[in-house]
Amino acid sequence: MKNYKIDFEKNNGIVPVIIQDFETGDVLMLAYMDEEAFSLTQSTGHAHYWSRSKKRIWKKGESSNHIQIIREIYLDCDSDTILLKVDQAGGAACHEGYRSCFFRNIKGDEAMINSKPLFNPDEIYKD
Amino acid sequence: MKNYKIDFEKNNGIVPVIIQDFETGDVLMLAYMDEEAFSLTQSTGHAHYWSRSKKRIWKKGESSNHIQIIREIYLDCDSDTILLKVDQAGGAACHEGYRSCFFRNIKGDEAMINSKPLFNPDEIYKD
Repeated sequence: MKNYKIDFEKNNGIVPVIIQDFETGDVLMLAYMDEEAFSLTQSTGHAHYWSRSKKRIWKKGESSNHIQIIREIYLDCDSDTILLKVDQAGGAACHEGYRSCFFRNIKGDEAMINSKPLFNPDEIYKD
Repeated sequence: MKNYKIDFEKNNGIVPVIIQDFETGDVLMLAYMDEEAFSLTQSTGHAHYWSRSKKRIWKKGESSNHIQIIREIYLDCDSDTILLKVDQAGGAACHEGYRSCFFRNIKGDEAMINSKPLFNPDEIYKD
């Protein structure tokens, strides 16, 4: 019997998930989970998400091998957002090759790229 | 002329915003912004959000005085999620008095509270 209940109903069956690097504290990406993705993440120890564009569950790293190994899972006060602390295989979470998806720093009207990609996406995602 | 465009349209005019403590790297909360809240945040230097329950813009700290002072703003690769790095006035971002909204650590079927509240919400939110 669980002593918590994630509120999937509030937002059409999915909740936002913040993914943070366990060692560095860097925020790597935001993704979404339905109840099955959460359950798979818990049971396998590897991050699974709900793809809103593909409308299916995906295992992070299924194409790139850049899986996310779960270190800790947190739930927020409203039970409608999850925080994962992970070890990021390959070092880069972003499909564009950057360590973090948040690689653009906004100052006024300008967004400046503040890091370098760790891999070339064309070599990783071949299809 | 901006060299970026936040994709508010994708998600009914709002985007999720991850709020991270500038000094410690702790993830404090998740909130949402519409275009006006983003604009107010940029122009005032204090975090403004869109409340999905109240259906209006709110300034973080308008009741509690626990405002968030913007240090850095980041945009993700898909332009549909924002990351704010802030100085959290009063030390606590959560309306329940905790430093972070993510104060419950999930292990299997158990969620365990892993920190202590910094204030008593009943004394802060009087109405």
